[in-house]
Formats: sequence, structure tokens, C-alpha cells
Amino acid sequence: MIPRYSRPDMVAIWSPETKFRIWYEIEAHACDAMADLGVIPRENAEAVWKAKDVEFDVGRIDEIEAVTKHDVIAFLTHLAEHVGSDEARFVHQGMTSSDVLDTCFNVQLTRAADILIADLEGLLAALKRRAIEHKDTVRIGRSHGIHAEPTTMGLTFARFYAEMDRNLSRMRDARAEIATGAISGAVGTFANIDPRVEDHVCDKLGLVPEPISTQVIPRDRHAAFFATLGVIASSIENIATEVRHMQRTEVLEAEEFFSKGQKGSSAMPHKRNPVLTENLTGLARLVRMAVVPAMENVALWHERDISHSSVERNIGPDTTITLDFALSRLTGVIDKLVVYPENMLANMNKFRGLVMSQRVLLALTQAGVSREDAYRLVQRNAMKVWEEGKDFKTELLGDPDVTAALGVEEIEEKFDLGYHTKHVDTIFARVFGE
Amino acid sequence: MIPRYSRPDMVAIWSPETKFRIWYEIEAHACDAMADLGVIPRENAEAVWKAKDVEFDVGRIDEIEAVTKHDVIAFLTHLAEHVGSDEARFVHQGMTSSDVLDTCFNVQLTRAADILIADLEGLLAALKRRAIEHKDTVRIGRSHGIHAEPTTMGLTFARFYAEMDRNLSRMRDARAEIATGAISGAVGTFANIDPRVEDHVCDKLGLVPEPISTQVIPRDRHAAFFATLGVIASSIENIATEVRHMQRTEVLEAEEFFSKGQKGSSAMPHKRNPVLTENLTGLARLVRMAVVPAMENVALWHERDISHSSVERNIGPDTTITLDFALSRLTGVIDKLVVYPENMLANMNKFRGLVMSQRVLLALTQAGVSREDAYRLVQRNAMKVWEEGKDFKTELLGDPDVTAALGVEEIEEKFDLGYHTKHVDTIFARVFGE
Amino acid sequence: MIPRYSRPDMVAIWSPETKFRIWYEIEAHACDAMADLGVIPRENAEAVWKAKDVEFDVGRIDEIEAVTKHDVIAFLTHLAEHVGSDEARFVHQGMTSSDVLDTCFNVQLTRAADILIADLEGLLAALKRRAIEHKDTVRIGRSHGIHAEPTTMGLTFARFYAEMDRNLSRMRDARAEIATGAISGAVGTFANIDPRVEDHVCDKLGLVPEPISTQVIPRDRHAAFFATLGVIASSIENIATEVRHMQRTEVLEAEEFFSKGQKGSSAMPHKRNPVLTENLTGLARLVRMAVVPAMENVALWHERDISHSSVERNIGPDTTITLDFALSRLTGVIDKLVVYPENMLANMNKFRGLVMSQRVLLALTQAGVSREDAYRLVQRNAMKVWEEGKDFKTELLGDPDVTAALGVEEIEEKFDLGYHTKHVDTIFARVFGE
Amino acid sequence: MIPRYSRPDMVAIWSPETKFRIWYEIEAHACDAMADLGVIPRENAEAVWKAKDVEFDVGRIDEIEAVTKHDVIAFLTHLAEHVGSDEARFVHQGMTSSDVLDTCFNVQLTRAADILIADLEGLLAALKRRAIEHKDTVRIGRSHGIHAEPTTMGLTFARFYAEMDRNLSRMRDARAEIATGAISGAVGTFANIDPRVEDHVCDKLGLVPEPISTQVIPRDRHAAFFATLGVIASSIENIATEVRHMQRTEVLEAEEFFSKGQKGSSAMPHKRNPVLTENLTGLARLVRMAVVPAMENVALWHERDISHSSVERNIGPDTTITLDFALSRLTGVIDKLVVYPENMLANMNKFRGLVMSQRVLLALTQAGVSREDAYRLVQRNAMKVWEEGKDFKTELLGDPDVTAALGVEEIEEKFDLGYHTKHVDTIFARVFGE
Repeated sequence: MIPRYSRPDMVAIWSPETKFRIWYEIEAHACDAMADLGVIPRENAEAVWKAKDVEFDVGRIDEIEAVTKHDVIAFLTHLAEHVGSDEARFVHQGMTSSDVLDTCFNVQLTRAADILIADLEGLLAALKRRAIEHKDTVRIGRSHGIHAEPTTMGLTFARFYAEMDRNLSRMRDARAEIATGAISGAVGTFANIDPRVEDHVCDKLGLVPEPISTQVIPRDRHAAFFATLGVIASSIENIATEVRHMQRTEVLEAEEFFSKGQKGSSAMPHKRNPVLTENLTGLARLVRMAVVPAMENVALWHERDISHSSVERNIGPDTTITLDFALSRLTGVIDKLVVYPENMLANMNKFRGLVMSQRVLLALTQAGVSREDAYRLVQRNAMKVWEEGKDFKTELLGDPDVTAALGVEEIEEKFDLGYHTKHVDTIFARVFGE
Repeated sequence: MIPRYSRPDMVAIWSPETKFRIWYEIEAHACDAMADLGVIPRENAEAVWKAKDVEFDVGRIDEIEAVTKHDVIAFLTHLAEHVGSDEARFVHQGMTSSDVLDTCFNVQLTRAADILIADLEGLLAALKRRAIEHKDTVRIGRSHGIHAEPTTMGLTFARFYAEMDRNLSRMRDARAEIATGAISGAVGTFANIDPRVEDHVCDKLGLVPEPISTQVIPRDRHAAFFATLGVIASSIENIATEVRHMQRTEVLEAEEFFSKGQKGSSAMPHKRNPVLTENLTGLARLVRMAVVPAMENVALWHERDISHSSVERNIGPDTTITLDFALSRLTGVIDKLVVYPENMLANMNKFRGLVMSQRVLLALTQAGVSREDAYRLVQRNAMKVWEEGKDFKTELLGDPDVTAALGVEEIEEKFDLGYHTKHVDTIFARVFGE
Repeated sequence: MIPRYSRPDMVAIWSPETKFRIWYEIEAHACDAMADLGVIPRENAEAVWKAKDVEFDVGRIDEIEAVTKHDVIAFLTHLAEHVGSDEARFVHQGMTSSDVLDTCFNVQLTRAADILIADLEGLLAALKRRAIEHKDTVRIGRSHGIHAEPTTMGLTFARFYAEMDRNLSRMRDARAEIATGAISGAVGTFANIDPRVEDHVCDKLGLVPEPISTQVIPRDRHAAFFATLGVIASSIENIATEVRHMQRTEVLEAEEFFSKGQKGSSAMPHKRNPVLTENLTGLARLVRMAVVPAMENVALWHERDISHSSVERNIGPDTTITLDFALSRLTGVIDKLVVYPENMLANMNKFRGLVMSQRVLLALTQAGVSREDAYRLVQRNAMKVWEEGKDFKTELLGDPDVTAALGVEEIEEKFDLGYHTKHVDTIFARVFGE
Repeated sequence: MIPRYSRPDMVAIWSPETKFRIWYEIEAHACDAMADLGVIPRENAEAVWKAKDVEFDVGRIDEIEAVTKHDVIAFLTHLAEHVGSDEARFVHQGMTSSDVLDTCFNVQLTRAADILIADLEGLLAALKRRAIEHKDTVRIGRSHGIHAEPTTMGLTFARFYAEMDRNLSRMRDARAEIATGAISGAVGTFANIDPRVEDHVCDKLGLVPEPISTQVIPRDRHAAFFATLGVIASSIENIATEVRHMQRTEVLEAEEFFSKGQKGSSAMPHKRNPVLTENLTGLARLVRMAVVPAMENVALWHERDISHSSVERNIGPDTTITLDFALSRLTGVIDKLVVYPENMLANMNKFRGLVMSQRVLLALTQAGVSREDAYRLVQRNAMKVWEEGKDFKTELLGDPDVTAALGVEEIEEKFDLGYHTKHVDTIFARVFGE
């Protein structure tokens, strides 16, 4: 986790304080359930709630762990300091450390997912607003980085919206993947604890009981979760790449927002770097790199080994914190992106109408000119544009063979941008609904 | 694609013949739609169906491509050889190559998904059958590779079932991710083709129209698809690892089926190698390695570049073929796995009852013995087992301090395996339903 | 392996014919060594060489393997068909299949490495030639895709040369990593075969004996080998990305060679797509994806398991074939790259001198103007360029405050491109030597 | 970076204090060089050294950065607070931030490499000591997890030694890869700074001048560096996997050291978990996951973009800190590994001599028995061992057909372990030298 690429709410989920708070809730709810089942005395269950508003002392717990070499035992010891040794003596009964650790991890991931879902919703709002704003802002579409046919900036925003909307749906599925809890004992057989304790704890924590666990919750769930983060990160890279291209000096169709006061801006007005989206490109790699280790974590030995643990201590916080930051940063970029419609037009006209050559070619053949002749007609005019800097439409209008086949009006019509934008509304309806 | 790790049905999906057949269907259905819209003459659309039962000549198409350097043009030229040049002249009108290529790729992936779904269903059936068969076959559960508490072989199969059942659900979602088609033109604006053509073609091919495309179908879909294959592969590795562990000489709780006739088996009966599951471990890596490139493919430049193409030419066939083979191989392994219940019992008793030490410890404290004393009591008997090869229960029954606290019956009860299996039915009901 | 991305020499290394030829040589040389040691009769060793010029019948070997289910035994059976059953009876004595398989794999990798080394040398020659050709071709250097300061096209080629020269050196190291052989028996103890057999076979095949093997040659070697291919692929992506940027419509400082006859080129002269370098970007991903599985292959169980085998059957041929093709394709791209020096100048002057603003700023402060004043002076002239389209130098020369501080001559000097290229020779000497 | 998996010396390399100290040295040495060249006054260069023993105030620098939004400027401002604004006015002249940042990063990586090299040397010493100690400790070699032929524990340690020795050599190469510095200005042309400044700074910092840089040092170097860390991590996983296998309950040929006082050890003596090596398995994944992003960092746009920066802020510290910790932890594991030679013998004899069946088979054929008969003889005795629990050698000695072919002495000889260990000295000499 790199502080400069993090936001406090997500960081808080991964703090020791939050972790111990969740551990506490798991233990306290488990005691309630055991009391309900008559396994432990009611008063002992109630006593645990005395610590309800206590802020656990992380330093003290660390101190105890330094002696016991066991984090859950250290916490329980500290809890007993608040609840009373005797009152606390049934806490954790029949449970195994992983019951607490795994269930807590999934609570944290679920909360992280909630933030990421909210992030995506925020990003979608920004994308939708900019899409509508620039629905008819014509720019050249490019394949292979080369001018192809006209499109609109609104469609660009709309396709990013559609992509992020899919990511929102994936993120919700991913949240469901890891919204399970397990209180099932050393090898998942409930030998020492009633399954109804698991039901109760999960219910209270907003989780679903894991149908079958083995001390640990199966890691295919986490693999699917982190893979989803990797897909979302890749979409961030996709949008970031578009912005970086738009901002490059020769294109300059948009710029990341640049506050007037920012040093150097006006003495070197050409030197405004798309550093936010470049940064997002790197952050995407960081989120993505967790996918393979999360998949390698699936094949634990027998009922569990602990190889996944160090991996998750890292990627749990790091990827969610980084992705939260990246989504937020991207939302800001989209929200404040400075769009230059006039440059879009200028770029489109860089080759003075040549982007329409394919349309003209098609029109000629449709008008009955043979493919070979049509090609030759287009070519001889295109070459004058390419080599002598002439204007394509002007040349065509001055070529009697062309006007004979198409007529002035039809030639003019071929250069009408409305031809290319006529289905924008259809597409918007598909993406944003009516 | 490695022939020895492939099966014919999946391979067929990726053959040139299948590809050209799908291209043909896309073009023919598109012509129908255009005829319906009055864009092209009905008879030209109908003429295309003359080639309905033609087997396209791949060699001939390659020959043409060698000249035209363009695969779609080569195919269209060949198609015209069957349909007639004049009749075929409206085929592909207003379309771009990617309309055909991307839609075809998604048809292939969808079909591949169908096979993988069937594979998973087959695997689930095998896992369920073996789970029920071995529901009560007791074996030791292991954490860290070390004996923990008893569980049953049925629970092992059941957890693999639950995991693969999640994978089935993920695979269905992944199928939906890529079951889209696009006939939207050079930059996705439908400038030269009516969106209703796309509707019709998609409908005929069992696809959903891509809401917004840009010459290409957005690659976040494919990233999500291949990520899902990676998760499934990781689950395969998980099961394979369990089998490999069970078969190792010292454990020998199960073996991959070994036909009597197989060379060397009876002269060296100890030397039966779990080569199928080792192989599955490697195949899992091959499927998984496609995940990151599929994610790198998402960030195409502007409306498209072609960097994703070579990647997909490889990972499209290779991962689906490998995963199909792996699922099928795994199903065979599960189906025919030779299970040795007696070895399971022998292993569990390797340390003559010591696996029950924790239960005894707990019982002593619950009987009112202090934690320290209980620990000391267990320890002194455990050490006789560990160091002198004694039997744990016998020692406990002979230790008056222990019998004073627990009584003979309760000690006996602590060694009752039924204690550990009492919730197996509950778990089975969760996993398999009532 | 995708046929269209492969070249015959590299493909041949991975053919069954080549494999069986290498197996044969290993076995025949091993027999020689055993005869020298008096372990087998000399005439039996000599008899094996009867098959020296035989082309082994792959179909026949496959046929036998279908029965024996063992590839090495199938080969040995076929070999006996040529040599004579009795004469061949000492072939493979004391050896294990992996002795043949692993040594053969390393021979193949070594030969593949030789081709890749030659590829890199060819690429270096092309890069050097173009670097010298364009040593003084000025273009704007860009950071963040934004104009920074002038550099030269020669320096661009030179830095790619330096990078690929490092790759050549890495490739040579990688070759040494896997140029080992092992004939050490079932667990590497030489129990059934004299270590001198290994010495002899390795010597004949141009390998070094693996100091300690365990049936298999340790896979850290292969991990290092494939990691090196991944680094080289990343450098290919680096160069490809530069070309793609240069060719994009708005930049157009270079184009991949486009033969006159290539369809569509002259009717749509603006539509020349950098498809080769886009393709190289994808191929780089394919090579890179083998790195992690190769690393996952390192941790084999005990003396060996076979999980690495399926991985290597894939990545052995696929990555070397793809990288060979990619290096060759890149060499062609560099060799024939059409460079547009006039466009480079035009791009540099897009903002009429503004790229020199930093130099002017520095000059003003060095002339004693305070930082704040210097900034203000540059800013007010820069803004006229940025907002009104004026020429920067003209504005500066017309600003009495600026001319007071710097003088006309010094202002002129600040726009001298020679200032930026004065160390090009120094850098060339560093890269190419004197 | 996870505190529990880190060691102070490596952490210190990545502290802000160390970073600023290195920045300072770069700037101060650069001033010296500029003074030598007569570019700046000698007294200004000397004045910079006034801050030689200053501990820079990180909080203060952060405070300034919060205003300037630029880390290098913030540092220079703080430096001027120590040196004097006027005296410091030539600091950083003609340089660009990356000159400082990239050179500093490589200094940090170089120092990290030095620690890792020392770590590897420590690990090698431990492996060598244990190899010699257990040179003749016989254990069964296993392929596929199945007993194969005898080997020795010393050979196991020796092969890990050989592997880590290769890693030491790779690490030294990797150190050389990134031991370069660059002070070459905005696009690497030395337009504003003399190349001799770079020479001097590099010389003082123990670096080699980067032959050609472009504001940044080329990232193929870093890709190669992090790839090497990934290979080393994979070797750690390899050793960790062996230990985990040896410690599993059924094998128990070795255990991670377990201090007597450690809770729970003696009441549950069978429950000693190989948690250190399981942890190492996870840490290996964490180091390895940086390899692909480091490779994705190579293809920067034009002369540089900043996408690599966020990646390196993470993987620079995280992988070196994790690998340092892992190597140190592994060294402790090896150093204190509790080896159980008696269990090794017991395991080897699990099938009462059957591991020798292949040797007997070979001996029979060498004695002139036909392959089929030999196989039948071995088989009928092997089956008695396998199915009835008899002892193999005893059975063979009681089978007149066998004794007729081999004689008692030869049968006895086939069970002599010395046969398998006869070349251990040869292998040790290869690995450790004479």
C-alpha cells in the first residue's frame, strides 16, 4: 500500500482496529448463539457485550502476541482483560482461529466491495454526464491509430460507460462470491460447534454461511474476486489510454484538468502532461498483478495450509486500496476533462476530406461504376490531396468523370457528417436506456 | 494446442472449416436482413443460401488469401465462386471485416463454453456419486499436511463438488459475457449499415447485440471470460493436488485407476504414479497463463488496434481445448479413483490416538481441571505415545488422575469417531440439497 | 503455435523428426561411452550407428506408442527395428527416460537460442544502420506524449540498439543456463550408469553435464531462460509502441513499409495501418505469458513430478517460435521503416517555438533576471503563441524587456537546434563504440 | 510491504531518509563536477557539502511538497534552507527530476541487491553445512511422490545448494543490470548538462553511466532485475515444498525447528506445522507477481511516460523486502531443520524391499533370463509382498527359480544401499568443488 495512492475509508477497513472490532463481533455473536443453544451460560454471552464500545488497544494486543506468538489468542487475552477472565472463559469455545480470521477477511472484502461499487457508480455518473454533454461532438474515429470514419466524443464516453456498467455488475457478483462466513472448526466438520452458531454469526454480519468449509473458506471464491478487480483495472487502463492519446501534443483533443495556479502551466502552456492517466496505467498493473497469486492460492494442501495467508495480507488491502484510489482518480479525470471540439474537427480535416474516400468509392460502385474504374477515380483525386495538399471534395467536384457518375449533390452528401451520427441516439438508448 | 491434450469436439470449433461456416452464416443472415430492409434485392440474399450445404475449400481460400493478403476478402471471393459473382455482389455490403471476425469469435467462444458447461456437469455428477459413496468413509483431516481431526472422504468429494458447482455458475456467467455480436461498421456508428441487420444476425446466431461497439466488441468481456477459465483451472489444480497427496507412497489413501494390463504394474506394484493429476497441475498453469494477456488486451487504442488478435488466435483455441481436456481427464480420475478406506484408518491411527489429544484436553478443562493441570495430564500421556509407541487411549485409561476427572466412559467417548461425523448429513444437505 | 507467426527453421527444431534424431544421438553416444567403459560390448555400440542416416518413421513410432503408452520405449522399439533386436539390447541400459527427454529438451532450447541470437544480431545490424542514417535527423523528444526538447531519430534507433544489445547478452546467458545435459538415472545418483557416460554424451552434444540432477534437470534453469525471452519480448513491445506512435495520423513521422501494390493504399493513402507493430505488441504478450508458468514449474515434488511436462510441451515450441518470428518481423519493420524527416520538423514546430520556452527561461535567470520576472516575461510571450498563434521567437525578439536582458543574438541562439544535438556523437560512441 | 515479513536493513534502504540522502549526494556530486568544469562557481559546490551531516527533515519536505506538488523541488527547497538560498542556487542546474529519481532508484536497488547477495551467501553456507552433515544419510528418492530409488539427504541439500548458487550468480548479474546512473537531461541529449557530470556522479555512487538514456533509464534493465528475483523466489518455493513434504505426518523425515517452550508442542507432539515453509510458499508468490508488471513497464511512450512510477514505488520496496525476509527465514529453516534419519529408513522400507524390484529385474535379464521370465519371477514375489506383507528379499531368497539365476550373494548385493550412494562423493565434488 502506497500512502499517496490510498483513500482513508478503504484504508480504515484494513486497519488493526477494524480487524479486531470484527473479530470481537464474530466472537460475541457466536457466544449469543451458543447461549441460545444452551451450550454456554447466558450471562457469559452477555458479559462479552460489555466490551461493545471499547476501543481495543492494538499496542497491548501486539505486546501479548509477542509472547503467545498467536494473534487470535492475543486478542482473546486482551478481550478477557475487558470482559473479565472468568466471564470470558467460554469465548471462542469450539472454534478455530480460521473461523475468526476467514470470516473477518470476508467481512473486510465485502466492505471493500461496497466502496468499490460506490466508486463505480460515481464513475458511471460522470461518464454519463460527459456522454450526454458530448453526444454530438464529432471527432474522427481511429483504427490502428489511423483516421477511419467520424464518430462522436459522446460515443466514446458512452462506450466507457457501458464497459464500466458491466464492471459494476461484475463487482456485485464478486461481492457475492466472498460474502460468506464459516464457523465450522478445525476441519470444517462442526465437531465442536453447532452449525447454528455459524448461521447466527453470518446473519448478524451480513454474510451467507459457507456451505462446506475445511477450517478455511475455499479460495476459488477469492480468486474470482481478485480476477474481477483485475478486469476492472484493465478497463481503467483502457480509458486512461484513450485520455493519454487525446492529450498528446499532436492530437490535443482533450486534456486532464490543469488548475491555473499549477506551476509552469502558463510559461510552457504546451507542456501539460497527462500524469493522472499515466499513473492510472501503472495502478492498473498493480491491481492486475494480484490475479495470478490469488489463483495460485486455490490449491491448498488437504483441509488447509497457510501459504495463502501472506499473499492475502498483501493483496487484500493493496488491491482494494489501489483500485478505490484509481476509480476515484479516474472519476475526477472524467469529470473535469477539458474537451477541445475545435481540435477534433481540425484533426478530422488533417487530410482535407480523405477520410471520406471510402464512402466515395462505395458510392461510385453503387452508381454503376466498375470496381476498377471507381478505384482509379478515387485514387487520382486522393493522390492530389495526399501529395499536393489539395482538398478532396474540391478535387472530386472538379473531376468530370466523378461528377458524371455521382452528381454534385451526391458528392456533397458524401461529406455530410450527419451520415455518421444518424444512429447515435439509437446507441445511446441501448446504453443508457430510454 | 498440443494434440495429446485435446478432444475432437472442441478442436472442431476452432477448425478453419467451422470458422468459414460461421462467417458464411453471418454474411447470409446479414443479406436476409438487408433484403428485408429493402437495402439489397431479395434474390441476391436468397442466392447466398445456395452455398448452404457447401463445404468451403480451405485450401482454395488460403490460395486466394496468399494474393489478396486479406482473409475475409479471400473468403468472400471463394463464396462468390459458389454463389456467382453477380449474385454475391451485395454480400458484406456496409460491413467491416471485424463485424464478421468478432462475431464469429464470440460464436466460437459460446460453443466452447457450452462444451465446458457440459464438462463441468459431467464432473459434478462424478463428484456427487463418489461423495455419496464415501459419505461415511472416515479419514483424517489435515491442516498444514499434519493430522488434525477426522473428517470423511465424502466431505472431500463434497467440497470439490461445491467448488465446481460455483465454477459451473461462473462458466454460465462467462458464456453470457461473450455471447454478443456486432455488425456496426468501421467505428461502430452503423454509418453504412442498419442496426437491424445486427439484430437479425445476432438473433439467428443465438447472440445478443453488443450495445455499443467500435469496429470491435469490447475486450473487457473476453478478459472476464478467460479469467473465469483461469479460476476453473485453479480448482482443477486444487483437486489434482489432493489426489497427488493421497497417492504418495506414505499416504496411499487413493490411487488413480491403473489398468491391470498396464506395463510394470505388478512387478513394481508400489510404483503407480499419479501422472494424470500431475499432468492436470501443469494444464492448469497453461490455462491460467492466458488470463493476464487477455487483460492486457482490453486497452486497445481508440476505436481499435489489432494487438489483441494474435493473442486471441492463440488463447482462444488453446485455453478452451486444454480446459476441456483437463475437465474430461479429471472426471475420469474422479470416476475411477481407487479409494483405500483401510489405509485411511491406518493413517489416522499412525500416532495411536494422539489426534484426539485436543478433545481430551478440552474435556478435562470442561470437567473442571485447570488449564495448566489439564495440559500437564495430556502431555505426560501424549509423550509416552510419541516417544515409547504406546496407545493414547490405553495410557489415559491407566492414568488415575485422568480417570478421576473424566471417567472411563467419557474417555472412551472422546475416541468415538461418530463425534466428528455427526454433521455430515447437514453439510451434504447444504451442498447437494435435500 | 500459430502457423502464420512461425518460421520454418525454428519450427523444425520442434518437429518429432528432430526430437527422435536427438534421442537417437543421445542413445548412440551413450552406447559408445558404455563400450569405452567396458560396460557393453563394442559391437553393440557400433551397431547402433547403423541407423545413423535413417529417417525415423514418426507414424510407426506413434503406432508403437499407442500400444506401449510410453514414448521412449516406443522409440527404442522402433530403433531396434533398424538396428536389430539383439544388437540393440544394450541401448538405454541403466538410463531413465528423463535422461533422454531432458537432455533432448535442452538441446532443442540451445538450438532455439542459437536462432534467437542470430535474430538479435540481425536486428542489431538493422538498428545500427538506421541509427547512423538518421543520426542528425532532428525530431522532438516527448515525455508523457507531450513535446519536451529536440532529439534525433538516430538517438531513437540507437537506444533501441543499446536495449537489444543488452538482450543479446541476456540471450547468451540464457543459452548457457539451459545448455546442460543429464544421464544420471532414476533419482540422479548414477546408481545404474557411470557418470562418464553423461560426460561423453554432453560433450558430443555441445552441453555441459548438469552438476547435480534428480532424474530431471532443475527447472530454475528453464525459468531463467523463459524469463529472458519475456524481457526480450517486452523490448520488442517497446520498439513496436514507438513505431505505432510515429505512424498515427496526427504524428506521421514514420510508416511501416507499404508496398505500392498493396490493395487500397493509393485510394486511401491516409489509411496505412501499423499492423505489423500492432501484431508485435500482441506477440510480446504471448511470449511473456510463459514466464510465470515456467517459474511455477520450479517447485517439483521431491526428486521430480511431471507437472512441468505439459507446460513445457507448450511453451518450449510456442515461445521460441513466436519470439523468432517477432524478432524477424521487427527486423523487417526497422529495415524498411519509411521515415519522414520533414514531418518531424513540422511536428516540432507545431507550437511555433514554444518547446524552447524552458531554455529561454533558464537564459533569462542566468542573465540575472529574477526567477519571478523571468517567468513573467516568458509567460506573456508564450501566451501570445498559445492563444493567438504567434511565433515565439518573433514575439521574444519584439519584447524589449526580453531583448534588454538577452540580446538578439542570444535569443536566436536559444532556438539553435545544434544546442540539442551537440552530444549525439558522444552518445553514439558510447553505444556503438569508436 | 508487510511489517511482519520485513527486516530493518532492507526497510531502511527504502525510507524517505535514505532516499533524500541519496538525492543529496547526487546533487552535491553533480555540483562538484560542474565546478570542475567551470560551469558553476567552486564555492557554490562547496557550500552544498555544508549539509553533509544534516538529517533532512522528512516532515518539512512533505510540507513543502504539499504546496509545490513536486517532490524534487520540495527537497531542493529544503536543501536551500540548510545551505542558504544564494549558495544553493546552482544546485540541480541543467538537470531534470528523473536524473535524480532514476539514479537514486538504481542506487537503492543496488544496495538491496547487496543485501540479497549476502542473504544468498548465508543460505549457501547453511545448505553446504547440512549437505556435508547428511552426505550419507540414506533416504528414498521419490518421483511423482512415489518411492523410486535410494538417495541421500546430503544430495537433497546439495541440489538446493547448486540451485541457490546459480541464483547467487544470477543475482550478481541482476545487480549489474541496474547499477547504472543517468544525468542526461529532459530527453537524454545532455543539452543542458555536460556528460562528464554524469560520469563523476556515477563514479562516486558506484554506478556505471547509462550509455543512452531518455530522461529515464531504460526499463528492460529493471524487468531483468525483477525477473531474477522471481526466479530466486521460485527456488525458495522449491525448497519450501520439499520441507513441507518431509514434515507431513505420514512422512516425518524432518521438521522445522520447534522450540521446547512453544505452546502446545508436547501435549500434541504430532501437531507441529511447517508454517515457516508454508509462509515461504506464499512469499514466493508475492515476489513473483512483480515480474509481469516490471515487464509491462518496459514499453514507455516515446522518451518516457510515468506509468512505470507507481508500479516501482510498490515493487521496488515490496519485492526486495519480501525476498530478503524470505531468504533469511529459509536460512533459519535449513540451519535448524530437525532431520530424522531413522524415519527415512523406516519410510524406505515401507514396502519391505519392493523399491529394489527394478534392480532385481535388471539383474535377472543380465543373468540371461528372458525379459518375460524375469518379469514373471519378480512379479510373483512382489505380489506376495504387496498383498501378503511378506519381505521381498526373503521371498526372493526362497524362490528357487530366482536363486538359480542369481545366487544368494547376488540377491543380497541387490539390496545393498552402497550401490546407490557410490557416486555421492563425485556429485559433491561437482557441486562444492574439491
